[in-house]
Amino acid sequence: SATPEGRGPAPGRAGGARRLRAILGAAGLGAAGRLRVGHLLPLVWVFHYREGLSWDGGPREFNWHPVLVITGFVFIQGIAIIVYRLPWTWKCSKLLMKFIHAGLNTIAMILAIVSMVAVFEYHNARNIPNMYSLHSWIGLTAVIFYSLQLFLGFAVFLLPFAPVPLRAALMPIHVYSGLTVFATVIATALMGITEKLIFSLKNPAYSASPPEATFVNCLGLLLVIFGALILWMASRSHWKRPPEENRRLLAASQKKGA
Amino acid sequence: SATPEGRGPAPGRAGGARRLRAILGAAGLGAAGRLRVGHLLPLVWVFHYREGLSWDGGPREFNWHPVLVITGFVFIQGIAIIVYRLPWTWKCSKLLMKFIHAGLNTIAMILAIVSMVAVFEYHNARNIPNMYSLHSWIGLTAVIFYSLQLFLGFAVFLLPFAPVPLRAALMPIHVYSGLTVFATVIATALMGITEKLIFSLKNPAYSASPPEATFVNCLGLLLVIFGALILWMASRSHWKRPPEENRRLLAASQKKGA
Repeated sequence: SATPEGRGPAPGRAGGARRLRAILGAAGLGAAGRLRVGHLLPLVWVFHYREGLSWDGGPREFNWHPVLVITGFVFIQGIAIIVYRLPWTWKCSKLLMKFIHAGLNTIAMILAIVSMVAVFEYHNARNIPNMYSLHSWIGLTAVIFYSLQLFLGFAVFLLPFAPVPLRAALMPIHVYSGLTVFATVIATALMGITEKLIFSLKNPAYSASPPEATFVNCLGLLLVIFGALILWMASRSHWKRPPEENRRLLAASQKKGA
Repeated sequence: SATPEGRGPAPGRAGGARRLRAILGAAGLGAAGRLRVGHLLPLVWVFHYREGLSWDGGPREFNWHPVLVITGFVFIQGIAIIVYRLPWTWKCSKLLMKFIHAGLNTIAMILAIVSMVAVFEYHNARNIPNMYSLHSWIGLTAVIFYSLQLFLGFAVFLLPFAPVPLRAALMPIHVYSGLTVFATVIATALMGITEKLIFSLKNPAYSASPPEATFVNCLGLLLVIFGALILWMASRSHWKRPPEENRRLLAASQKKGA
């Protein structure tokens, strides 16, 4: 069961189950489409309203922080969470999906760490203290728990050593802690947006609602909507990847129908 | 099934199921204890570090905002969410528990609305614009969805008119939207704490980590821990209130054992 298999033909004009899968697949593609638009918005923020990007210890180095957090730690983590629940992935092997899930989460963690390095270097270059704000406390806590989650997930669910009862016992905890860390990351991003707008907008101030304030507030709202969408997809049982036995039957019936 | 019933004796030195209930009950009491301590912290904040409370258009009127939000919209809402899952409430009737759930949520909403009035009056008295920040946008959105949730919950689950299939179909949506609004409220509170500390701490500034900054950062961390605890209790199946039939059997067996 650990090799790619069951790559049946695309569903035709078939029965209810297949139609449901097609609808769910379209919804999944829709979510992916929103993702592609969504991760461009922080780039618009830093290039249109801010100083752009570079790695020079100045504000342009700081700008990597929101870009990498929103792209990596929010959007890529969100996709990693629901990747098993996109119905057009159900025909892929479980092992392949695990690699994609672990790979996307690894990319998200690397981007989160680089984004933190950018802030520390920026702070140090300007003699701004590190780790004083609630944003930094909760953000660092989230990164630490995310690393633990990634390490334990790798050791228990990807490596072939853990016995099945241990996997079964830890899976609900893995799901709970993954979703809780994800929600915490979005809350941290909202705090970071609040800090950045208060510190950066001086003339006119944040309270005068200049275009940048409205634009970035909308970006924050989209983060909440994205988070709510991911939590919805992750908690609906009809988007759960079917158990392996059912999945094989489905693949077989599709091959017969082709 | 709609009257209080089954008030059996306290569990003695009995079998595994009862011992489990006792442990879960102790955990529930522990959570309630943390709550009683937790809702005092915003009072320490406003009386020890800030100007205190009054209703005069000044900073002391603003201070009602964090006190009422954290006490009502975070802690009381959190308790309302898990009130069905405290094992020592399983012997109470479902209708009584529904009234407690709806009542606590109504109190939380009233406190949230009063807390918003305090901010609007404070802003207006000082000519500070309203509704410019991401905190205000997401906070108002959360209050609107919370009101909708309360109204629909009352109409569908408390009033006796909705047919059972409709209740069954809407329950997962009620649970999802309740938990999502709760998480959003905590995220909004964290943004509000960030704003308030940046605006209020001037000499020394927030970045110099005065005692108030450390104290309120800890309060923010406790809000995240409280939220994570509520989400854990709300999503564990062994804390789910047993179906009515099982509940009656349990009550009967307890009476026999007395």
